[in-house]
Amino acid sequence: MKTDIDRIMAERGLDALVIFIGEEYSAALDYLVGAVRLTGGMAVKKRDADPILIVNGMETDEAAASGLEVFSYGHFKFHELLEENDGNGSYAYAAMLAQALAGQGVTQGKVGIYGTAEVNGVLAILNRLRETHPDYTCVGDGGRTLFDMAAATKTADEIERIKSVAVRTSEVLQATWTFISGHRAQGDAVVKADGTPLTIGDVKRFVRGALLERDLEENGMIFAQGRDAGFPHSRGQADMPLKLGQSIVFDLFPYELGGGYHHDVTRTWCIGHASDEVQVIYKLVRDAYDIAIEHYTLGKPTHLMQEAVQDFLEAAGHATSRSEPGTEAGYVHSLGHGLGLKVHEAPYISHARKDDAFAAGHVVTIEPGLYYPEKGYGVRYENTLYISEAGELVNITDFHDELVLPLKGS
Amino acid sequence: MKTDIDRIMAERGLDALVIFIGEEYSAALDYLVGAVRLTGGMAVKKRDADPILIVNGMETDEAAASGLEVFSYGHFKFHELLEENDGNGSYAYAAMLAQALAGQGVTQGKVGIYGTAEVNGVLAILNRLRETHPDYTCVGDGGRTLFDMAAATKTADEIERIKSVAVRTSEVLQATWTFISGHRAQGDAVVKADGTPLTIGDVKRFVRGALLERDLEENGMIFAQGRDAGFPHSRGQADMPLKLGQSIVFDLFPYELGGGYHHDVTRTWCIGHASDEVQVIYKLVRDAYDIAIEHYTLGKPTHLMQEAVQDFLEAAGHATSRSEPGTEAGYVHSLGHGLGLKVHEAPYISHARKDDAFAAGHVVTIEPGLYYPEKGYGVRYENTLYISEAGELVNITDFHDELVLPLKGS
Repeated sequence: MKTDIDRIMAERGLDALVIFIGEEYSAALDYLVGAVRLTGGMAVKKRDADPILIVNGMETDEAAASGLEVFSYGHFKFHELLEENDGNGSYAYAAMLAQALAGQGVTQGKVGIYGTAEVNGVLAILNRLRETHPDYTCVGDGGRTLFDMAAATKTADEIERIKSVAVRTSEVLQATWTFISGHRAQGDAVVKADGTPLTIGDVKRFVRGALLERDLEENGMIFAQGRDAGFPHSRGQADMPLKLGQSIVFDLFPYELGGGYHHDVTRTWCIGHASDEVQVIYKLVRDAYDIAIEHYTLGKPTHLMQEAVQDFLEAAGHATSRSEPGTEAGYVHSLGHGLGLKVHEAPYISHARKDDAFAAGHVVTIEPGLYYPEKGYGVRYENTLYISEAGELVNITDFHDELVLPLKGS
Repeated sequence: MKTDIDRIMAERGLDALVIFIGEEYSAALDYLVGAVRLTGGMAVKKRDADPILIVNGMETDEAAASGLEVFSYGHFKFHELLEENDGNGSYAYAAMLAQALAGQGVTQGKVGIYGTAEVNGVLAILNRLRETHPDYTCVGDGGRTLFDMAAATKTADEIERIKSVAVRTSEVLQATWTFISGHRAQGDAVVKADGTPLTIGDVKRFVRGALLERDLEENGMIFAQGRDAGFPHSRGQADMPLKLGQSIVFDLFPYELGGGYHHDVTRTWCIGHASDEVQVIYKLVRDAYDIAIEHYTLGKPTHLMQEAVQDFLEAAGHATSRSEPGTEAGYVHSLGHGLGLKVHEAPYISHARKDDAFAAGHVVTIEPGLYYPEKGYGVRYENTLYISEAGELVNITDFHDELVLPLKGS
């Protein structure tokens, strides 16, 4: 939780942290400062003190909405710093950063660097700072970041926001099911009323509109059919027509409009009918999900849940990334991940990450799958769940698990 | 242009470049590799050689769509690197990067670092690489990046894509004008058929839907009314009802769905009527735009265009960021910027940046404005233009400049 940040800074020996602000949404900035819309500048936080914001003069009003103390570049006489550095913006910026740190009483020590931004500019500034102010050591955390650590356990307010996204996402899934179902078959093709094929691009356009109506947006949804469904991160090809009897992996991970809390859900659908083989595989994946749930206990290392699923699927004759590292056929990925302001964050449910244990406030996905691209299919089933204060694992994805999507259009 | 990359690498003494890939859209990756959808890994390019992609096994198929040579983490035995480094992912990643560079024949030298990503992880990897492989010097460019330099001059194909976004954006502006106009006045409020107020949030929702219908999306549009319009980067408050007679700055900078080429346009609207004062200021800003256009010549330093506008507005009695650095009242920002895969890129039209000159293939905004937050208004006018092969400055924003938006609802 946010209140853990100072403790984690102390554990890691960080005297201060800096978030570099870019034009992109930054989960770290949102977490520390709130949903202000800035396109540049920095947040600087001394350990055990409130953060300050340093922004372009055009964005001081937006920054002030955070309630934090705001300094414009003008406060640091950025124009003069630029002149002193022959117009080199990185050098001027490094000088401003040093002033800002000193102004917070941090004249030396270890400074954690965060934010989502163009790395080139940040590196130029930090390389310069190392030359001019060698008493600062700017570091990445390596592995789990401070924000990953803090954000893993959610407050009640955060869980409420995630639940709201879950409800709206489930509505979109239902609307998408109904939308596709309203089409008709022509041979093995799914066609519109005018006889033209329904494509993956059409479906994605429908999904984005349905999300927008609910103040959600998405970035990179997967709607992958046939062989493409056999690659867990294949997005699906926009111009591909939907076909009867193919497995479709539909993985949707929307978030609050403008950047915010996520939901993450996957269903596998076969339009009209499913082959015996895909039905068997789907049943196995669905059972693997139940086995994961059965192996949940508060405080248990998360990797044991993944290993239980791997035991089950290996016993059923499938390769896993444990039995055959690097395999691209079988159960090839980890079982799940935390989510919040980022779609992937701690805790991780993976046999390769043994340092996580289930705790109250965690929000995680559980998403077993089996992938056989060379056989032309893939299957995944995923819900989002949270761990209540009482330690219960509660599913918040309210959508059915039917494999076959019937066509009802005429 | 993309074909300039090797030349610029040579000029900057870069032996190789690395793009770190994050979950976010990356303009540098799109520019170098094309619109592949990856969530991690790296692109590595030796000077005068084709780039390679290094990705998670789940994303090899998506990466292969680039046509480039693709290596999975498995190729570098990432599992073993992790074990050798006691599970420290940053250390393993640094080892993999060193292997990848060596595999491309780069065993020492200067490596440019690019991409949009979480800076914390990148810094941890680069700090480690500096310890284990001091023969590599990883650098940011400082100031204008290699990609900023290359991308400033567009190819004919890029300009066609930008023109297409321009056409669709203008349609959305017209649809938004018509949408608002379809409401009616009640006192000084703009209300819907049911008598409830029309809010900025309602308008933004309409705009997003209209963009989506045209395969566009946006991130951070400005629709700011009254005092908020007086702050150039204030986004506008979603719950604020629209009022008659207030100045509204509507700045829309959409891009191709999923990330891609941009268009950028601003109009100032007053619903129902405009005060004499705002009309005078609007006329002045509109004239400032024309003066900017008059001062265009191929090859001319861009800052001279901004200085012509500053001369004009200062003579009319307004402070500018040249006459009063740091002022938040008057003409407080630069005149324009390049745009392409990024909404802000080279060239810049600013009196503080004297190293740009107009060249064929440039795509730029021209956007004078006057801001008086304490008087409760702000005004901006902006079009996107490109410089043809013949050296002509061509406006591609096709939307009228009427200030007063009449209400026609009943």
